[in-house]
Amino acid sequence: MIDLDRIRADTPATARRAYLHSAGAALMPAPVLRAQIRHLELEAEIGGYAAATAEQVRLDAVYDGVARLLNAGRDEIALVENATVAWQMAFYSLRFAPGDRILTAEAEYAANYVAFLQVARRTGAVIEVVPSDASGALDVAALERMIDRRVKLIAITWVPTNGGLRNPAAAVGRIARAHGIPYLLDACQAVGQMPVDVQAIGCDMLSATGRKFLRGPRGTGFLYVRRTLLEQLEPPVIDHFAAPWVARGEYRLRADARRFESWENNYAARAGLGAAVDYALMIGLETIEARCRMLSGRLRSGLAALPGAGLHDLGADPSAIVSFTLEGWQARDAVAAAERAGITIGASDPASTRLDAERRALPTLIRASPHYYNTENEIDRLLEFCATGR
Amino acid sequence: MIDLDRIRADTPATARRAYLHSAGAALMPAPVLRAQIRHLELEAEIGGYAAATAEQVRLDAVYDGVARLLNAGRDEIALVENATVAWQMAFYSLRFAPGDRILTAEAEYAANYVAFLQVARRTGAVIEVVPSDASGALDVAALERMIDRRVKLIAITWVPTNGGLRNPAAAVGRIARAHGIPYLLDACQAVGQMPVDVQAIGCDMLSATGRKFLRGPRGTGFLYVRRTLLEQLEPPVIDHFAAPWVARGEYRLRADARRFESWENNYAARAGLGAAVDYALMIGLETIEARCRMLSGRLRSGLAALPGAGLHDLGADPSAIVSFTLEGWQARDAVAAAERAGITIGASDPASTRLDAERRALPTLIRASPHYYNTENEIDRLLEFCATGR
Repeated sequence: MIDLDRIRADTPATARRAYLHSAGAALMPAPVLRAQIRHLELEAEIGGYAAATAEQVRLDAVYDGVARLLNAGRDEIALVENATVAWQMAFYSLRFAPGDRILTAEAEYAANYVAFLQVARRTGAVIEVVPSDASGALDVAALERMIDRRVKLIAITWVPTNGGLRNPAAAVGRIARAHGIPYLLDACQAVGQMPVDVQAIGCDMLSATGRKFLRGPRGTGFLYVRRTLLEQLEPPVIDHFAAPWVARGEYRLRADARRFESWENNYAARAGLGAAVDYALMIGLETIEARCRMLSGRLRSGLAALPGAGLHDLGADPSAIVSFTLEGWQARDAVAAAERAGITIGASDPASTRLDAERRALPTLIRASPHYYNTENEIDRLLEFCATGR
Repeated sequence: MIDLDRIRADTPATARRAYLHSAGAALMPAPVLRAQIRHLELEAEIGGYAAATAEQVRLDAVYDGVARLLNAGRDEIALVENATVAWQMAFYSLRFAPGDRILTAEAEYAANYVAFLQVARRTGAVIEVVPSDASGALDVAALERMIDRRVKLIAITWVPTNGGLRNPAAAVGRIARAHGIPYLLDACQAVGQMPVDVQAIGCDMLSATGRKFLRGPRGTGFLYVRRTLLEQLEPPVIDHFAAPWVARGEYRLRADARRFESWENNYAARAGLGAAVDYALMIGLETIEARCRMLSGRLRSGLAALPGAGLHDLGADPSAIVSFTLEGWQARDAVAAAERAGITIGASDPASTRLDAERRALPTLIRASPHYYNTENEIDRLLEFCATGR
């Protein structure tokens, strides 16, 4: 059973606003804020290097926490500046030849897609988009039919940014495994919202952020790379931490996933990330997912019953990202008006997921993303606002 | 005239330790700590996105501050996670063909050198090291003689990590300009210690960190790229901030230096960096340099007079990084003993600057780096420790 009073006490701002924007950046709980401030104060007192040394055990344990969160080995984890850097370090490590096929999904995120375009232009690889099924999710049977020996990567977003879809990450993993194709999963919106098990999913690489459902600091992210793939990947850029300079003309890549890191880090942010992971694990990801499902379900039911509201979520089993329109209201105006009413929500721009947005002719959508620290009452406040706020 | 009382009051830890390790990570002044904590607290209260919006003017002004610090345009500045990322984004944007020559200096930093090695292996470019003159600095005449049309990059470290050397950055710039060769300057140890004027230096690209002499947060750095070169450089990796996804099959690189950034950032750290830049500009870089010169000169004179102490600084006009050995004492043991005596100094490992270290057969060196917030008395305490601490 979730101790909502304690959780909300750990998140004092919940007393002052209905914060329904965890898909953007969630509210950090007190231990996450405290871990960062404590580390910064230590740095100001003894210096940045001594502070990292003094906190080495705690900072080192962040790898164990993330590994536990993902059911991975700690040597398979790199801690980096954000989810995009994590994804880039994986993607740009892969080598493509002309005609090599990169398979992705219709709801792929803009950051990833422009990188596909850059690499396609550089190498002659081609980008192919797996069609969606009737529910709007990646069509697993279609993916299976597209596989041939020129497919050199499957790279999809698990939970897209622009609405409730969950892509069938594990079903994709079974196909990738069966054909020995590297599989890169963008789990930015999944981590912290639901259990994530890289063994069950069967992905080779997984990227995620700290700031969203995990409730960590901005400017934190991590990458998982399966041990067996890791050794074959040379990062697109290196420094002397990733690849120590062992002789005048020679560097040697680190054996573990930290070959995707660089030497210098923001250790205060890393300490905050560790606190966020611990906090999520303490509550339990099943518990979190169940509550996210309940709250987002309540919001969807309410919106479905509301005249003039249009739900735009895809998928049979939606995530906690609820995307909708309100008749006669521009999304950004609605977001601003909600903020004035003490309700924080966000908007999702078509350019973030251009393929899907063009296919469905989507405008900018209103996006509300409840988390376990929210209450039914906050959902009802948002519904009331949608009904009467105009 | 420097207001040392105020400066030391802004740096309360100076009352408790002699901190002579600014070449590692300097002590942050109170405004830098406060800017970070304030931003983190705001994020915890209103969310990470709203906090960035609320502080947009202040965060945006960081570009102006860095531009002023370097005498550059604000559109020529990218704010990134650390100096290595800054340097990498510049270096890995350049295109090399087999036989293209990369010229560097003997004291080049390990992070940069392993990147040279990686690119040499990928492209067939060759790395050539400009010899040093009698003082140990890059030999400008030798550089001039090495120039031909296959030289595609001059990349050097201005103030190396392992001792007092200042390489002749502006003299190198004159040669680079005269021959139209891109010139990448690693200014990690220079920024915040002395005036840095990219126009006077004539470099095309300059990378630096926040945490060293600039007294900013860990996990901050920046890159300058000259406007005319900028437009020709495509970053090695991109996201939808660097290169918006403008049509299904097309991205368009940003026009300014922010094409080297990614969308997500640690805004608390960025706020801290801005405060650090403002603080340095308020004191004045000429004032800072003069005081650094006086304090490091005092330390060098004292060490020169101390039996058993060996100074290992190169160059005719040394920086505030003082590198030395103490007979019968391993560097790391000396650093630990100094710490117990309330004096924070560091060590410099041969692997950080392997070419120079091998040429001079250097062991791990003791490294003391005073800054303007130090006092003559603190220098004398270190000298006393060196004389009697064993």
